[in-house]
Amino acid sequence: MASPARLARLTPKSVDFDKWYIELVRQAELADYAPVKGCMVIRPYGYALWEHIQAALDGMIKATGHENMYFPLLIPESYLAKEAEHVEGFAPEVAWVTQGGSKDLEERLAIRPTSETIICSMYADWIHSYRDLPVLINQWVNVYRWEKRTRLFLRTSEFLWQEGHTFHETEKEATEEVERMLDCYTTLARDWLALPVVPGTKTRSETFAGAVYTRSIEAMMSDGWALQAGTSHNLGQHFTRAYNITFRNRENAEEHPFQTSWGVSTRIIGAVIMAHGDDNGLILPPKVAPVQVAVVPIPAGGDEEMNSRIEEIAKRFEEASGPTCRIRVDRRDGIRPGEKFAHWELRGVPLRITLGKRDVEAGVVTITRRVDGTTETMGIDACIAALPELLEDAHTRLQARALALLEARSCDVTTLDELSEAFVKEPVFANAPFCNRPACEDRIKEQVHAVTVRVLRDDRKGDGAPCIACQAPSDHIALIARAY
Amino acid sequence: MASPARLARLTPKSVDFDKWYIELVRQAELADYAPVKGCMVIRPYGYALWEHIQAALDGMIKATGHENMYFPLLIPESYLAKEAEHVEGFAPEVAWVTQGGSKDLEERLAIRPTSETIICSMYADWIHSYRDLPVLINQWVNVYRWEKRTRLFLRTSEFLWQEGHTFHETEKEATEEVERMLDCYTTLARDWLALPVVPGTKTRSETFAGAVYTRSIEAMMSDGWALQAGTSHNLGQHFTRAYNITFRNRENAEEHPFQTSWGVSTRIIGAVIMAHGDDNGLILPPKVAPVQVAVVPIPAGGDEEMNSRIEEIAKRFEEASGPTCRIRVDRRDGIRPGEKFAHWELRGVPLRITLGKRDVEAGVVTITRRVDGTTETMGIDACIAALPELLEDAHTRLQARALALLEARSCDVTTLDELSEAFVKEPVFANAPFCNRPACEDRIKEQVHAVTVRVLRDDRKGDGAPCIACQAPSDHIALIARAY
Repeated sequence: MASPARLARLTPKSVDFDKWYIELVRQAELADYAPVKGCMVIRPYGYALWEHIQAALDGMIKATGHENMYFPLLIPESYLAKEAEHVEGFAPEVAWVTQGGSKDLEERLAIRPTSETIICSMYADWIHSYRDLPVLINQWVNVYRWEKRTRLFLRTSEFLWQEGHTFHETEKEATEEVERMLDCYTTLARDWLALPVVPGTKTRSETFAGAVYTRSIEAMMSDGWALQAGTSHNLGQHFTRAYNITFRNRENAEEHPFQTSWGVSTRIIGAVIMAHGDDNGLILPPKVAPVQVAVVPIPAGGDEEMNSRIEEIAKRFEEASGPTCRIRVDRRDGIRPGEKFAHWELRGVPLRITLGKRDVEAGVVTITRRVDGTTETMGIDACIAALPELLEDAHTRLQARALALLEARSCDVTTLDELSEAFVKEPVFANAPFCNRPACEDRIKEQVHAVTVRVLRDDRKGDGAPCIACQAPSDHIALIARAY
Repeated sequence: MASPARLARLTPKSVDFDKWYIELVRQAELADYAPVKGCMVIRPYGYALWEHIQAALDGMIKATGHENMYFPLLIPESYLAKEAEHVEGFAPEVAWVTQGGSKDLEERLAIRPTSETIICSMYADWIHSYRDLPVLINQWVNVYRWEKRTRLFLRTSEFLWQEGHTFHETEKEATEEVERMLDCYTTLARDWLALPVVPGTKTRSETFAGAVYTRSIEAMMSDGWALQAGTSHNLGQHFTRAYNITFRNRENAEEHPFQTSWGVSTRIIGAVIMAHGDDNGLILPPKVAPVQVAVVPIPAGGDEEMNSRIEEIAKRFEEASGPTCRIRVDRRDGIRPGEKFAHWELRGVPLRITLGKRDVEAGVVTITRRVDGTTETMGIDACIAALPELLEDAHTRLQARALALLEARSCDVTTLDELSEAFVKEPVFANAPFCNRPACEDRIKEQVHAVTVRVLRDDRKGDGAPCIACQAPSDHIALIARAY
């Protein structure tokens, strides 16, 4: 809060969405580019947002029986290489440590792009019997994947995430775990981030390297593009075979456990920005907003008595602040009220409360909602008491708006021509019957620039309708969209 | 809790302290060695301990006005090299990334050994005016320093820590900040970890590479060795000059800000283990213990009515569990009560509550304190109500014991011969008048195997007494000890 708000106008979304996004991330001081290509500095405001997202998700991860732990950053090349598909998928993105101090290493060490390989190496020693299962663990760490084209939060070489890893006695348990964690992610998106999402299964080409299948949730950004906001993988016995993890089952026979992994990353901050933000800045979901209520006292010139009455009210709001109702009074000197309004607007604070002379004389305060700019006045006590409700209401409005957009920008198509047509005006979520063969997926990609099959939807089935590409009877409805 | 407790006896501390330590860390499932030399896996029990330490310290860091953020893991070699002393100090320990995917990099990237250099590079762009100061930030991250000889928690190539970094308008403010954060560390040690510590200033040879001076807190382990449990550095303008960070001061002149940095790492877990543990295992400080109360129901054979009464009481304890009173009921099948006692003893749980048939008939439970093995019985309701107090009392007893050890194993010496004598029987904290010249520091090191000057004590002054090595009048009392 030390510097005056930079009042350079944001490029409007409608003019250049990409430019709007990067300007917003930097002007709202969420993050900035670091001197290492493709890496970012997450600034205090962005990191506080991440801390609130973390707290919500970590609570769910623990409530579902998982424990946090920490595995090393560096993975010997030989460990990475044991699962063939996995290493093939990740090798092109790996940052390699080859020197320690002034010495060349005998074996290269990979900075973890993800931790299945090191975790399997350790658990091969720790799992012996069905009594050791399930293993339900998670870690909050940094990972590194060399990226050529990067964008703050959305695609950076280094990013922060949680990666959950579990081992189970039976395939059924692993399958249930995959769903349980995808459900947690859906809840995080919907109830904390006000993001409606479409859950489904990835096609083979988008499946995690080494997985049996990958489940994901797809959110719609306000430009109609999709963003994958969380993934949950069923790894079957692929890794436990490759890393020779065995346990004695209840029949005293040796068996490989069934495994899952699942993750959500700082990418989800990009989703929050792009789904909700507008030309004036961020619109943060109240439950994870670092500041939920910005109180702006408007000095009454030389009227000292009035100024002290205003300050008294500001203090009452400040005293009402707590972990679940985060209130900030903006007392910065030498900044005009209009600039302060713009400052908190840019930062997406859900509620602004203005304390002006006329209001105070009338015993009220003015509340402005960030989500739709609506304003109302309320008695001071009533307002303080109503803050939790006002924040809940702000969440509901934000979610409703995102849902309305998702509905308005979704459509059903049955032929490739219809698919092209659907994208003529603007990017959409197009739903189409789909047979799930790679050749048909390729034809879809060729039909419209930059679209991909995001998921086979959970909520709708093909019911034998003709595949959009080959007309064969289809089991699936594919969600087709452009994606970040 | 899936596997039965491993009941292999620990090597007694008195027989082989090092062996006792490593066996304890592994058997209590705090951590284990990873396949990368010098790296560790922090297991769920150890990580939960770290999470509680983090929560306590993070609360203090935020309460003193700091905000968390995140800087990149990788630092270009040219950035690292700008502060001459700093790069000289850290270069031998750096892990270098030289390849990305299949390509050789043009410039080597260091995995951060600490982040002053990258942080200065960024803030050179962000600090312009005195209005931008102070900058008060912190990050919780992994760092890497290539180590030849490693020990779990105490010295590992990768470790977790928080690193605070601040920039100030004046030297005075920076000096105050250094003290403020050292005080936070003292509070963390004393009030959360039950560790009495000796605060002081490092000699030149132990000062952080690039700092004006380094402050630290030294804790006594139960073998009489010292462990540096937290450091706070005054960096003056060394880095801000080297990285050309300037601001317009209140007189509108250009100036370099004054800087501090300070850190506590997973090393402090090693201090907790070595200061408090005994031959039966860990003794965890109650405030950070992942499980504070272990409830062990003792099944009453075939007496089903009694078993359900016992279970009912167990449930009441479970219901009393919460974030500040963490209770675990041990219902594991097929494990004898004695094994369960040993399990929780090994893990250092402060209070054990046994629910046996006789107790239940008498309407009481038996409470056993881990710190001293003392036992008492108490009514069920009374016990549940008293838990917070019983935990507080366990903290007090643990702290008193650590303080008694520190006092018993400290001594004053005035000559090098007395110093030798003091270490004949066992390692101690020897206090001696000291002139703080490097030559005298070397003579002290030569006098007794493996001792170093840990700090110049804050609480005592030399008052002109003759230096232990050169007899010149001394301003300081040096704490001399062997150190981990």
